Amino acid sequence: MQLADEIRESLCGVVSNRTAHFASNLGVVELCLALHTVFDFREDRLIWDTGHQVYPHKLITGRFNQFPTIRQRGGLMGFPNPHESPYDLFMTGHAGASVSTVLGLKAADDLLGESHRKSVAVIGDGALPSGVVFEAMNNAAELKKDLLVILNDNKMGICPRVGGLAEYLNKARTAPFYNGLKRDVSNILKGLPVVGASAREALSQLKDAVKGLFHSGMLFEELGFKYIGPVDGHDLPSLKQYLQMVKDVSGPVLLHVFTQKGHGFRPACEDPVTFHAPPPFERDADNRILSIRKSSAKAYTASMSEAIYNAMQRDSKVAVLTAAMCEGNKLGKLRSDFPDRFFDTGICEGHTVAFAAGMAKSGMRPIVDIYSTFLQRSFDHIFQEVALQNLPVTFTLDRAGLAGADGPTHHGTFDIAYMRIFPNMVVMAPGDELDVAPMLDFAVTAPHPVSIRYPKANVESVKREVKPIELGRGEVIQWRDDGAIIAFGAMLPACVKAAERLEEQGLNVTVINARFAKPLDTDLLFRVLEESPWVITIEEHVLAGGFGSALLEAANANQIATSHVKCLALPDRFVEHGEREDLLADLGLDSAGLVSTALAMADRGTLVGDL
Amino acid sequence: MQLADEIRESLCGVVSNRTAHFASNLGVVELCLALHTVFDFREDRLIWDTGHQVYPHKLITGRFNQFPTIRQRGGLMGFPNPHESPYDLFMTGHAGASVSTVLGLKAADDLLGESHRKSVAVIGDGALPSGVVFEAMNNAAELKKDLLVILNDNKMGICPRVGGLAEYLNKARTAPFYNGLKRDVSNILKGLPVVGASAREALSQLKDAVKGLFHSGMLFEELGFKYIGPVDGHDLPSLKQYLQMVKDVSGPVLLHVFTQKGHGFRPACEDPVTFHAPPPFERDADNRILSIRKSSAKAYTASMSEAIYNAMQRDSKVAVLTAAMCEGNKLGKLRSDFPDRFFDTGICEGHTVAFAAGMAKSGMRPIVDIYSTFLQRSFDHIFQEVALQNLPVTFTLDRAGLAGADGPTHHGTFDIAYMRIFPNMVVMAPGDELDVAPMLDFAVTAPHPVSIRYPKANVESVKREVKPIELGRGEVIQWRDDGAIIAFGAMLPACVKAAERLEEQGLNVTVINARFAKPLDTDLLFRVLEESPWVITIEEHVLAGGFGSALLEAANANQIATSHVKCLALPDRFVEHGEREDLLADLGLDSAGLVSTALAMADRGTLVGDL
Repeated sequence: MQLADEIRESLCGVVSNRTAHFASNLGVVELCLALHTVFDFREDRLIWDTGHQVYPHKLITGRFNQFPTIRQRGGLMGFPNPHESPYDLFMTGHAGASVSTVLGLKAADDLLGESHRKSVAVIGDGALPSGVVFEAMNNAAELKKDLLVILNDNKMGICPRVGGLAEYLNKARTAPFYNGLKRDVSNILKGLPVVGASAREALSQLKDAVKGLFHSGMLFEELGFKYIGPVDGHDLPSLKQYLQMVKDVSGPVLLHVFTQKGHGFRPACEDPVTFHAPPPFERDADNRILSIRKSSAKAYTASMSEAIYNAMQRDSKVAVLTAAMCEGNKLGKLRSDFPDRFFDTGICEGHTVAFAAGMAKSGMRPIVDIYSTFLQRSFDHIFQEVALQNLPVTFTLDRAGLAGADGPTHHGTFDIAYMRIFPNMVVMAPGDELDVAPMLDFAVTAPHPVSIRYPKANVESVKREVKPIELGRGEVIQWRDDGAIIAFGAMLPACVKAAERLEEQGLNVTVINARFAKPLDTDLLFRVLEESPWVITIEEHVLAGGFGSALLEAANANQIATSHVKCLALPDRFVEHGEREDLLADLGLDSAGLVSTALAMADRGTLVGDL
Repeated sequence: MQLADEIRESLCGVVSNRTAHFASNLGVVELCLALHTVFDFREDRLIWDTGHQVYPHKLITGRFNQFPTIRQRGGLMGFPNPHESPYDLFMTGHAGASVSTVLGLKAADDLLGESHRKSVAVIGDGALPSGVVFEAMNNAAELKKDLLVILNDNKMGICPRVGGLAEYLNKARTAPFYNGLKRDVSNILKGLPVVGASAREALSQLKDAVKGLFHSGMLFEELGFKYIGPVDGHDLPSLKQYLQMVKDVSGPVLLHVFTQKGHGFRPACEDPVTFHAPPPFERDADNRILSIRKSSAKAYTASMSEAIYNAMQRDSKVAVLTAAMCEGNKLGKLRSDFPDRFFDTGICEGHTVAFAAGMAKSGMRPIVDIYSTFLQRSFDHIFQEVALQNLPVTFTLDRAGLAGADGPTHHGTFDIAYMRIFPNMVVMAPGDELDVAPMLDFAVTAPHPVSIRYPKANVESVKREVKPIELGRGEVIQWRDDGAIIAFGAMLPACVKAAERLEEQGLNVTVINARFAKPLDTDLLFRVLEESPWVITIEEHVLAGGFGSALLEAANANQIATSHVKCLALPDRFVEHGEREDLLADLGLDSAGLVSTALAMADRGTLVGDL
């Protein structure tokens, strides 16, 4: 217990200094200790699903001293990271894949003659409804592999859980204790008649009665898992005893552990939503919160949430869908004020998109509000249910670009490419805050699917008379002769700043707010290509398949030269965690980077001109 | 019943002439008739999941006369098609989204004051394990929408079903009849003690006993659905009665219907795998099969399956995973000969990829053998579980390109783009059959993830001394001075043919087998760009983000001009169904198209030279 207290103190120490995942980590301290006591994870396999509750695990696997660096550039990652430790097998950040990966680890270990290696997945009840978990359990049951899935049930994802499964798990909390290890079939029911109408009646009634008594576990048992639990996740001796017991059970086992989000730190228990990943706070010796440093700056998320709110107020056909990110996407006010048109599907992005497609088919105007990186889970449904049917679903892609301290599992760096390849899809990005609401308004009245991407950043604005949004039309911020910078998305203000600095050095450059990656404003962009001695495109996205690539494709198809174009984009490697501004600066994707690229382009232009 | 017979006769008539989905359609004749009798689908909503069992529905919704054109170019589509009929709401071809879409339809209808419109999804037991179904059921249970999900349980997908759920459903077949509508809680168990050790024991035993008796339905009931059934899916009066009964039940209902794949046509009942989508056959008056026209031509699928077989024979670490496509991917022999290293996960592509990642982490060399279009379902797992961890998983993407008569839901036209955007991923395509085995061998020994795409087509070969596969190296088929054609993938033989025809017209062109879209062979390809007066790239993939686009990006980054490059690719619209050769010819993606493009390029080159 002393170790548990020390771990909690370390967690508080870091988290009171900087935003980091907190309540979920407090909740798994004893579970983590019990796991590392009973298993030997130098040999055995452990996956923490979703991964933000990995801090205690990091603290006791040789990273105690580095722990204060967590989530800082060059420091420990806030998620499991195989580059840090052999105890971290997979970099996990998207929910639900743990059961699949431990099943794969186990299947391979068995084939390789390493059957003694145990495989354990720890998955939260928030991740449980994710379809891939069900797929994996279905497969695990058939393969009958020795597999331990620990359901870390704290009644929450980031927000309170939703769905039929949530209700099912809630009932488990009131069910009598049940030990699923007892497999013998009882003779209790032997006297019951099993044929004829009266038997049917009796069986039917019996079934309902039994359901009331045994809600916990039956669902998992029916899928082919042995269900054990529930167990108190903060009772360390009991946890160890249970883990010891299930360690050598053959076949797939689900151990249901009740934990409390924020356990051991009262403010976090009382408000686990705020303390999921709280801003820095001050506390007194009794762990009372003295102050929480809330940022006063407005983020793109808030701007989009306002725009959605206004659209919903204006048009009763507009609805919004989130996949368990009500908090992250700042949708609380929408949920309160438009409960009928607010849908939280849980961490089920694939379903969310197909659900929205159905709504659109009936005539509603659904907005799917999901982070760029998490929307990847619904790629195939964007294809089949939305783009192929040409249904007017709006996608608002938050955290598009570098998501900062969360790192590579959360960076949203592929969405321009994955949206742009689909016929019928319109791909937009606001150049600044002034574009946000008009773009959303455009999208919810457009007769086709539209995606809008914006970064995890505070809003900025470029002073100008804003041109209304028109399909496939960009905006000229300024038109000059010495070169041109084309921004797709929220790097526009940096482009304007760069242009100002270049002007000080005697270079007068055009600045374009592209707005659309599809359809491209070829009229405008080709004119830029033809009239500017050099052109820079910039986007917060990988080069492959992005905006710059779209421009190269279009220009090539129209036999327009592009040798004088430089496409600035993210590199073809996974970018680490750190402050977004620092990461972008390092990659030359800020005003300083633009200036130096522009100067180099201008020099090159001169050289070419000279030859 | 006469109508049912007529429908079956129509099905036999068409299918004995040409490959089409057959056994599954024979199985739903009565269900389809019952649905259209009890519901009014001018108002009510009906989605046929996966959609290949939609033929009876088409026959009775005004398309009887056009029916003989099904799956032919310009004729009816083999899947539901909203462009054909208002009775077809969604073009469905990928499994599992129906519950989500009908939930969306219903949620929107309710919001729009159209609550009288009923919503029905018909989903096969093959599609049921797909994670999105579970996500949708979880959400439907919470929303408590009036929703009818019909489980069309024929014990099969295309192949016999697998997984824990399959076993669960098998047990339903032997369970006593149970009518889930009875919701009253019985008093039967009132006498049981509910506290203390003896109570726990008794309850535990009781639970097991009850599970044995009531396997059918409990799983769905626990998720929050009312379970009704099972019902005999070929007993039309009984089906109607049940549908009438559940029509006005409130909340989500699952109606479990037993059908027989191939019902009413004995050969199909006896061999539903062959008759899922059989080649043309002759029958006598008693529906005995006289002959089946099996193609003797070898397809890329067979070539890849052989290559995988040989790799598995050579290296005990190589394993193969399929998502219910053992038949389509021709893996039967591998399953028989290497049962331990063959994994059929069911229609669960997301899980399949994450499972493979786990295997690779443990040291196996898994091959994920899935159609290009279906692999889209696992986009996010390719990202997180494979590319981000840089694990050596091999992806063999069958049906990459135009999949022919199946049409747009099955065309695999996005995979170069969606693979290429991920760091660490290697993207290959064999130029002809001679590349297939060497590429697979290269992939299963490479230290990173590799994807290999190949078309649904018969193999062809280009006569040459085959250059061994080296990472990021293309192959020069011939080097000439008048122009160049660069093929990525199996259009290489067409390029060689085009070169021959161009030579007859006095144009001597270079032909390149690119082999890699990532990493590109920039040494070779830049030399082509610099030395050829014009260059054509060709690929069976959309232009956006494809091979040509990759070349434009790389050339641009290296300041190499590309105005003389023409990228031939699929257009930015969904391509209809039809014979692959016909579709490609129409799009100019065959040797004739290449010749005319080359001549136009040569003319243009001359003109430019003249100026």
